[in-house]
Amino acid sequence: MLFRQLVDYSTNTFTYLLADENSKEALLIDPVLEQVERDFELIQQLGLKLIYCLETHVHADHITGTAKLKELSNCAGLVPENAKVACADRELKDGDILALGNIQIRTIATLGHTDSHNAYLANNKILFTGDSLFIRGCGRTDFQSGNAGEMYNSVVQKLFSLPPTTIVYPGHDYKGHLCSTIEEEISFNPRFLNLSKNQFIDLMSNLNLPNPKKIMEAVPANQKCGKV
Amino acid sequence: MLFRQLVDYSTNTFTYLLADENSKEALLIDPVLEQVERDFELIQQLGLKLIYCLETHVHADHITGTAKLKELSNCAGLVPENAKVACADRELKDGDILALGNIQIRTIATLGHTDSHNAYLANNKILFTGDSLFIRGCGRTDFQSGNAGEMYNSVVQKLFSLPPTTIVYPGHDYKGHLCSTIEEEISFNPRFLNLSKNQFIDLMSNLNLPNPKKIMEAVPANQKCGKV
Repeated sequence: MLFRQLVDYSTNTFTYLLADENSKEALLIDPVLEQVERDFELIQQLGLKLIYCLETHVHADHITGTAKLKELSNCAGLVPENAKVACADRELKDGDILALGNIQIRTIATLGHTDSHNAYLANNKILFTGDSLFIRGCGRTDFQSGNAGEMYNSVVQKLFSLPPTTIVYPGHDYKGHLCSTIEEEISFNPRFLNLSKNQFIDLMSNLNLPNPKKIMEAVPANQKCGKV
Repeated sequence: MLFRQLVDYSTNTFTYLLADENSKEALLIDPVLEQVERDFELIQQLGLKLIYCLETHVHADHITGTAKLKELSNCAGLVPENAKVACADRELKDGDILALGNIQIRTIATLGHTDSHNAYLANNKILFTGDSLFIRGCGRTDFQSGNAGEMYNSVVQKLFSLPPTTIVYPGHDYKGHLCSTIEEEISFNPRFLNLSKNQFIDLMSNLNLPNPKKIMEAVPANQKCGKV
C-alpha cells in the first residue's frame, strides 16, 4: 500500500493519499481546495489513478477539493451517510467496506463533531479519524449539530475498542504531532482519560472556542461538493 | 523501529524521533527549542530513554532544543564534523555508524547548504536529509559558507546513488509534503532534473531569498548547543 500524509499549513488540515501499488488505484481522504494542484500533481507523478475522494464529514474550516478533482480525474466523491451533499456519488454508512485494489477500507460512523461523520480504517491497521479523535484531543462539538455525548461514545466505545497498535491519523493537528496509536490515545488523551461521559460533556461545553474563520463559506460550499 | 515525524509549524521544521522498541533507546534529529516540552513528553509517554540528539547542521532559522534536552535527560549532543560547536559531545563524520539498540544510523556528509552538514540513513532505508535534499527542492546555499557546487555533488553523487526506494525525510517543507523517495526526487525534483552542475549553480545564485528572520540569534545560539 502506498501511503502519503499531506498538510495544508494554512488550516492545519491533513489530506491522505492511499493507493494500491499493483492496480495503481488511489483515493484521497479530505482533499483541500487550495491544495488540489499539489495533490493531483503527486498522483500523476506516482503514476496513480484517482478513483475516490472520501470526506470524513462536511468541513467548516476549509473547502473540499473534491469538485475540482472530479473535473481533473472523473473520480467519485464519497461522503458519510446523512451528509446532505446532494451532488455526492455515494454515501458510506457504518460497516461499509470500500475496496481499492487489494486495500479494504472500512467505514466507522463516528458522530459527535457533526451529526454525519465517518472514520475510515484501512486494512485493519491505519485509522483516519477526521475530526473525531485527534492526537491528545478531539474535534469540537459546539456547531453543525455536534453532540459531545455522541463524540464520547464514538471515541470510547468504537475507536478505543480497535486493536491498540492501530495507527491514528487525524484530520487536524495543531501542536505538530502527525500520527499516534489507539494505545497512546487510550493512555494519554486528556479529553478522555479518567473522564466519565458527563465530565466529558461538561468539558466540551466550556471550551468557548471562536467559530472557524471560513465557516460561513465552507459549509455551504462543501454541501455542493466544494463547488465555489 | 519506532518512528515519529514532528513539525514545528512556526518555522516549518521537522524533528524526527527514532527508537529501538526493545531497548527503548531513542534519539531526536534536529529538535527545536520551542518544542522541547512536546517532544520530551512524548518520549516519556512512550517509555523511551533519550540517548542522543543529532543535528544535521548548525541551523540558521531556529534554535536547537539540544541543550534543554540534555538538562532533562543527560542525552549526548552530536553534531557534524567541523560544525564548530565546542560544547557538542561528539562529531559525526562521513561513514560513521551510530548504533541505537539494533538500529544503525549511517552518517552521510552532505555539504552545500553549509560547510558542515550531515544526512543520516537509518537501517539503510530511511534517510534524514536535513537542509540538503528537500521534497522537490533543496536547501539554499547562499549563507553560512554554503556552496552550490558542493550541494549538487552531495545530492546527485551521494544521495541519488542510494537505493530508489529509500524514504526521504527532509529538514523542512513549505508545501505540505511530509516524505518522498529517492526515486521520486531523481525523477521529479526541479532543482536537479536535467540540470548540469553549472546550471544548478546559476539557478541557486539567482534565488534572491531574504535571510531567515532568526539568523542573527539562531546561529550563535546553536554554536552553543542551543543555550540562550
